Amino acid sequence: MPHITLNNKLPGIAALLKDFPETAKPMLELAQILLRGDSTLSEGERELIATYVSSRNGCDYCQYTHGATAKHLLDASYDFIARVKDDDADSELSPKMKSLLTIAGEVQQSGKNVSGDDINRAKENGATDREIHDTVLIAATFCMFNRYVDGLATIKPDDESIYDERGALLAEKGYGWQTDG
Amino acid sequence: MPHITLNNKLPGIAALLKDFPETAKPMLELAQILLRGDSTLSEGERELIATYVSSRNGCDYCQYTHGATAKHLLDASYDFIARVKDDDADSELSPKMKSLLTIAGEVQQSGKNVSGDDINRAKENGATDREIHDTVLIAATFCMFNRYVDGLATIKPDDESIYDERGALLAEKGYGWQTDG
Repeated sequence: MPHITLNNKLPGIAALLKDFPETAKPMLELAQILLRGDSTLSEGERELIATYVSSRNGCDYCQYTHGATAKHLLDASYDFIARVKDDDADSELSPKMKSLLTIAGEVQQSGKNVSGDDINRAKENGATDREIHDTVLIAATFCMFNRYVDGLATIKPDDESIYDERGALLAEKGYGWQTDG
Repeated sequence: MPHITLNNKLPGIAALLKDFPETAKPMLELAQILLRGDSTLSEGERELIATYVSSRNGCDYCQYTHGATAKHLLDASYDFIARVKDDDADSELSPKMKSLLTIAGEVQQSGKNVSGDDINRAKENGATDREIHDTVLIAATFCMFNRYVDGLATIKPDDESIYDERGALLAEKGYGWQTDG
């Protein structure tokens, strides 16, 4: 049960976005720019970063929702998503993507954990400054979203099909549409 | 030295906001709503929550900037700000504010750390659902800002007067003005 009284029964962050539209607007705009805006990282790669960070924060609603979104965008399997979260998909990821996930994992712990070596490795593997910037900010942003979702104890569905459906919708439509809902 | 090449020499998040205006806009809008929008928490109290979380994240640029902002808004001393960060100001804070800072400290660790007891104590001390919501979201948002600032190793001035001046400016003008800069 959520820690505060909400005027809807939606799961996860959807309930908070609906009841608090003033803060929802910039949060959704930020998600849309970071995850769907122009980028040399694919939408699926960016959702994978979001999934990885959400998993490490133990935020089930976010890790399953964005894991499903990444799965649909990458035309991948849920087994692959699980292996990425477990750091067990190195051979299936590009060296660049692997080094960006390492940076995201450091950011999840603390921004101060990102080392010069982490950055150099990403650059050696072809990451641009912009890709490093976006990786850090996606990771930081999900440290916000995850805490918002769990800090207010929002509803977490058990039914996996709910996440799959929501992921399919986010893969197709992105984050803008929610501002109308 | 920042981890990526920036086209300006501004300190802390200011450098990132200037070079990445597309993401800066929603981030500043979120800060303005949370820290300066209508609320039954004073602007100074909300800046104190931001300072407390930034201190616990070890983000010096943010803790000194928002500490200075809180100091100016509350007409307090820097000793008071330091005592709040050290959990050594209980007798100087209202029971409500103290219980909201406890929630913020839990969110800094993980959203899942916020317990029913934390929430009940805040409510017993007079906190409304909206105040609890805003406290959780301010804490979560600064977990983002802190990671953005430190994850890219932005410049951290040593000169305390820089933070005092910036805090005075943020106390007077809030966050909207930066979008012009």
